Amino acid sequence: MAFPSGLVELIDILSQHGVEQAVICPGSRNAPIMLAISRNTAIQSFSISDERSAGFFALGLALHSKKPVILCCTSGSAALNMAPAVAEAYFQEVSLIVLTADRPQEWIGQWDGQTIYQERIFGAHAKQYFSYSTQAHESSDEIWHRNRIANDAFWSAFSAPQGPVQINIPIKEPFYPEKGAVLPDSKASRKIQKWITPKSLDVATKTFIQRQISVSSKIVITVGQFPLNTAIQAAIATLMKKGIPVLADSIANLSGLAFDSHDLILANTQSWEALQPDLHIHLGKSFVTKRIKQFLRSNDKKQEWQVNPHPQALISDPFKGLQHVLEIDEVDFLNELSLLNFSEKQEAYFQTWKMADEIVATKRSTSINDWNELGIFQKIAQKLPSSNAEIHVANSLSVRYLNWINFVPKGIEVFSNRGTSGIDGCLSTAIGAAQDNSNLVISIIGDVAFHYDKNALWNSYVPNNVRIIVMNNHGGGIFRNLEGAKDLPELEGFMETQQVFHAENTAKDAGINYILVKNNHELLQSLDHFFQESDKAQLMEIETNSNLNAAALAKYMALFKG
Amino acid sequence: MAFPSGLVELIDILSQHGVEQAVICPGSRNAPIMLAISRNTAIQSFSISDERSAGFFALGLALHSKKPVILCCTSGSAALNMAPAVAEAYFQEVSLIVLTADRPQEWIGQWDGQTIYQERIFGAHAKQYFSYSTQAHESSDEIWHRNRIANDAFWSAFSAPQGPVQINIPIKEPFYPEKGAVLPDSKASRKIQKWITPKSLDVATKTFIQRQISVSSKIVITVGQFPLNTAIQAAIATLMKKGIPVLADSIANLSGLAFDSHDLILANTQSWEALQPDLHIHLGKSFVTKRIKQFLRSNDKKQEWQVNPHPQALISDPFKGLQHVLEIDEVDFLNELSLLNFSEKQEAYFQTWKMADEIVATKRSTSINDWNELGIFQKIAQKLPSSNAEIHVANSLSVRYLNWINFVPKGIEVFSNRGTSGIDGCLSTAIGAAQDNSNLVISIIGDVAFHYDKNALWNSYVPNNVRIIVMNNHGGGIFRNLEGAKDLPELEGFMETQQVFHAENTAKDAGINYILVKNNHELLQSLDHFFQESDKAQLMEIETNSNLNAAALAKYMALFKG
Repeated sequence: MAFPSGLVELIDILSQHGVEQAVICPGSRNAPIMLAISRNTAIQSFSISDERSAGFFALGLALHSKKPVILCCTSGSAALNMAPAVAEAYFQEVSLIVLTADRPQEWIGQWDGQTIYQERIFGAHAKQYFSYSTQAHESSDEIWHRNRIANDAFWSAFSAPQGPVQINIPIKEPFYPEKGAVLPDSKASRKIQKWITPKSLDVATKTFIQRQISVSSKIVITVGQFPLNTAIQAAIATLMKKGIPVLADSIANLSGLAFDSHDLILANTQSWEALQPDLHIHLGKSFVTKRIKQFLRSNDKKQEWQVNPHPQALISDPFKGLQHVLEIDEVDFLNELSLLNFSEKQEAYFQTWKMADEIVATKRSTSINDWNELGIFQKIAQKLPSSNAEIHVANSLSVRYLNWINFVPKGIEVFSNRGTSGIDGCLSTAIGAAQDNSNLVISIIGDVAFHYDKNALWNSYVPNNVRIIVMNNHGGGIFRNLEGAKDLPELEGFMETQQVFHAENTAKDAGINYILVKNNHELLQSLDHFFQESDKAQLMEIETNSNLNAAALAKYMALFKG
Repeated sequence: MAFPSGLVELIDILSQHGVEQAVICPGSRNAPIMLAISRNTAIQSFSISDERSAGFFALGLALHSKKPVILCCTSGSAALNMAPAVAEAYFQEVSLIVLTADRPQEWIGQWDGQTIYQERIFGAHAKQYFSYSTQAHESSDEIWHRNRIANDAFWSAFSAPQGPVQINIPIKEPFYPEKGAVLPDSKASRKIQKWITPKSLDVATKTFIQRQISVSSKIVITVGQFPLNTAIQAAIATLMKKGIPVLADSIANLSGLAFDSHDLILANTQSWEALQPDLHIHLGKSFVTKRIKQFLRSNDKKQEWQVNPHPQALISDPFKGLQHVLEIDEVDFLNELSLLNFSEKQEAYFQTWKMADEIVATKRSTSINDWNELGIFQKIAQKLPSSNAEIHVANSLSVRYLNWINFVPKGIEVFSNRGTSGIDGCLSTAIGAAQDNSNLVISIIGDVAFHYDKNALWNSYVPNNVRIIVMNNHGGGIFRNLEGAKDLPELEGFMETQQVFHAENTAKDAGINYILVKNNHELLQSLDHFFQESDKAQLMEIETNSNLNAAALAKYMALFKG
């Protein structure tokens, strides 16, 4: 039988390592890989035609399952369409195993259809590149090599910091087994297990931490993007009680446990001096807004630590003052910290943050009754489920609003594609994450990001637990808020790029429920049942005017400038 | 004024070289480039939000204008979304100048939003990579360097073989000039003109050609994809009269002038021996179908030449028998050839092809009255305009049908993205080509390619001269025709990937006319006015059943197996 060698074993080994899901984009060259996957009963397969959307869908699956997901495409430009999702997975540190079917090497550049240069096609955005031979070999060395590649690919993707890997797979014709033929068995498979012992804090590091803490009296912890982690939440709550102010981004998943209105507190630059730390400890990834970074960068006298158990090879120093990288599990670090005694002055420093937070909290809780995005986000926040839900917030303006109002209920996990901060696949990621997910999956997305990625709904995998809220201001509303941009004559034509589409027709195509909301009355009425169970996914489109949105936001921000 | 240095000059130099069009994708980091472009009155700018579609739209502009087109995007994954179009431009040899805004080098990897590894992001699919400094420099060396980059970028893109180039442009804040500010002037611009003298045939080459022709008696010319060129058409007509059989692909733009049913003629393998050449001369790029390649590869006794004035650095040898590459203008070569005397046996060889062609022509002109794609293509062919029109045929099955029936009227140019043969941007390319085009621009596209690229219609540039014919068989119908694939249990779920969408809602969003056609009566009625002038673009969706299509095609193909 002419079925390409090694494919059944490749998929079998990945499956033995716990890979359970695959997204397959239809094609001819990759048909044998498709067969090896779809006939492996331990793997759930999804078929998605638009490779860009498929890539982000796979990212969503992996975000939900926390396991590597296979992404498989045919030869040619298919793989290039997956590149945006691969880059997002690289920077968000999510493991994807991308299997790109290819022509055999000797056919590259010979004007054959769907033949491009696929070697290392994701460049620096794949953690590893492998070329996997599917030729029938007698040699045991080659079987041994294939086995190693399958194991290496899994471990490269899955070892922290996780990320995407590419396995390029040249395949010769024939692509299809004979009618009724059974695929070869996988007896040559050999799984190689790695046993990775967690690091524990050594005496030298403990001593260093203790000594530095003992000479600090204005310690602040900042937490950027971080997946929901109950152990972290508990440790943070303890430290807040012990007088360590923790500033958390809206996507840090510490809602209600830390000071989460940093962008509004720091809008009042007169408060900066009193709020400056002498020791700044950062956990997690990036902050969405600029101000907190500017605040911390403006202080060159402080100590700065970054706690990161598995940093990338090159140092990330976003606050421009990093002195110590602690390669320690965050929970271990926070627990160790909570055992220490803090300076008496620390409590006063905590109170300074607390007061600033309370002032902001009062102002930001004022109901906004005019029809604009700020008021709408407030109203949605009040109706969000308090459990069994998760929020996937799109890039651009949507994720920023979350930092400006008290949006996220405690216990609701927030996801956002902040690896590259692209708008390209926010909805597809949410749809992927909604598979086999008992949560209500709520996507909050602007009209531009929605239409960019509307092929997220062009597949047969849009489950009933999906809720999409499209904030339609008919263009890239973010630009109207930017100093400088908002006064340019090119604003409407080349920045906002006003667009007239609604989401209704897309919802119709996808066979999901659609509600258009244009005022507070309709909003409140619709919100009453929007988050309830339903027999179809639901899309609520909220139409606003970007001039009024920008004016309301400017007025709101002025409240905090103090 | 803080406007980034060198941008006005860059755009000015490109404009001096004749660049007249730019596609700008909205963003913040690239706002200064956008301003330098949109305020240059010699450049027509388009604003398109989906970078994937924008890339193919730019390709379409360049295909129509035959001039380099600027494609400009912000930092981050934006550029990755353009990669499919850049790869297509590389292999189709179309010049694009891609300006990717970036953060300054020191900010890469620092968790800032929209920051990825943009250096050489298109890999082997960009002809050249440049990094363009926008820092204010006193040094004349640096101004000199920027000037060289602007000139080099133009000439790299525009010199044959044409292709895409990337200029990566790190830009520091502030991005926006002050309100009412005028951009800096371009007095530092210096255009460098290259004068490229066309090569003419030298004596040695002429002697070689004459000697080989004199010892050949079965000369055949094959023409793969080739842009419409009236001088080529005239030369080919002359050679056909002189007894040289010319086999042209449906996308060779030689309709009515050469034998264009090679795939059907060669379906009868019993005829192969008599049709084999002793000298095979190839012009243009690839053939869509496999059979002609298999036919020529099966003959290892013939001479094989490739005429290609500007080949890529590495040899393309798609027929596996190449011996001579003639780096000569195709018209010069054909004219030279037509001056020569051919062997007396050549005429008999020509007649063998002619007879085979006539047998096929009779069979393929039989009207197919059942409702299937073959019959539909026949009926559309009869109603196509005979002038002032062009056809953009999508990849996968659509372009194959053109080789199976007598589809393209003489004088109508056919375009197809056969560089990578991807379905990813076929419609966007057509919409780009339709700008400022007095032709009726007809896109023929399958339902999968249509929905994949439906964002082609998500912009404000869909002109009235666009006609879209969506062949909707609710999935990747091509797979049902493939031996081996059609019998797999995975056919419907993982190959065809059946999809239920119609194009109606997309057409509604775009504000263009929509007609759904489900039988011959409706088809003929609609075709009567579909190609007439209208005040809106028009989309005709033709719904068929992929089982019936495949059965009809199999029956049709059996006619020719002889």
